[in-house]
Amino acid sequence: MSAKRSPGTRSGRRPGNVDTRAAILDAARARFAEAGFDKTSIRAVAAAAQVDPALVHHYFGTKQQLFAAVVEFPVDPEATLAIVDSAPLDELGAAIVRAVVGIWDSPAGPGIVAMVRSMLTGDADMTRTFLLKVVLERVRARIARPDDDGHARVSLAAAQMMGVLIARKVICVEPLASMPLDAVVEAVGPSMQRYLTGAIDAAQPC
Amino acid sequence: MSAKRSPGTRSGRRPGNVDTRAAILDAARARFAEAGFDKTSIRAVAAAAQVDPALVHHYFGTKQQLFAAVVEFPVDPEATLAIVDSAPLDELGAAIVRAVVGIWDSPAGPGIVAMVRSMLTGDADMTRTFLLKVVLERVRARIARPDDDGHARVSLAAAQMMGVLIARKVICVEPLASMPLDAVVEAVGPSMQRYLTGAIDAAQPC
Repeated sequence: MSAKRSPGTRSGRRPGNVDTRAAILDAARARFAEAGFDKTSIRAVAAAAQVDPALVHHYFGTKQQLFAAVVEFPVDPEATLAIVDSAPLDELGAAIVRAVVGIWDSPAGPGIVAMVRSMLTGDADMTRTFLLKVVLERVRARIARPDDDGHARVSLAAAQMMGVLIARKVICVEPLASMPLDAVVEAVGPSMQRYLTGAIDAAQPC
Repeated sequence: MSAKRSPGTRSGRRPGNVDTRAAILDAARARFAEAGFDKTSIRAVAAAAQVDPALVHHYFGTKQQLFAAVVEFPVDPEATLAIVDSAPLDELGAAIVRAVVGIWDSPAGPGIVAMVRSMLTGDADMTRTFLLKVVLERVRARIARPDDDGHARVSLAAAQMMGVLIARKVICVEPLASMPLDAVVEAVGPSMQRYLTGAIDAAQPC
């Protein structure tokens, strides 16, 4: 891979990498904001940052991961989203509840809460994009069927998860706020499963 | 009823009433903040505002309604909460979804959204109190059984409603954001019903 800004000598490597990372992030931020997520390519970001596209992949991974870095998402979404792909379809609801609530309960939780707070108040466009394009699209692709594209289902599932997380972590509604993770999974999992794969009349156009 | 500040002549009545209302609200705000909702009585508020308790009831109704006025809740909660009392128990989930989403969709909606935004970010204690003491307690009283006090159930139901409202009105996750009310009721009602009266293992201590 070739970076316009050379990593330089060993002692100078870290500052060089930091600069390159920062240049890529700046370019990505501007590009995502201007063109939106769909119309932004790794190649375009690399061109704007004057680096090789391979270097963007090297530092940030996929376009989704680059976006997560731009919005400073406190955890790598891939770790959680991998569960969406690997869980059996009839256990997807419980698996998502366990993974997402588990992350919020983890040391990364406060960072996510802060991010959600700003998403709920300030200019939430970037975060909404992250939610819709990165998180929900991955779930939708998993549950889509020929007769139901899954868009309504994932929006309902997202609402369910947001509610649990905000009630548990932001507003702290007891006893949900201090309910053990297993109990949350048991209580909310079936509702999630119904939204994702159950009998709901959500395929109608809205 | 006797007000320390006389309403005065007919032409002077409105300013006099406005002052008295404001004095009661100021006293209530201070008292609720200091002593909390449970330990605040209409009588104590009246004493602090130097008016007759009957005048507090006359202007504001119940303690719950006085509290709603203090936190500037944009609608009278009684109108919605009456539904909690009147709906058949096996239709309670759908009835709550219809009533609450209906209010958010109404002209009062933007005021509620603004309130929720501040609740999610700023000092949310008063609003949390409103939610827990006024709204959730009314629902809990309706569903409580000898073997299940309903606390976990209403916290889960509250999370479900918060999520729908935030996804629909604050973050605007489509297609939920523009889904017709009937479709929202059909999709979310059964989940709410399950939280309120269905088979969930939520009675365990948390």
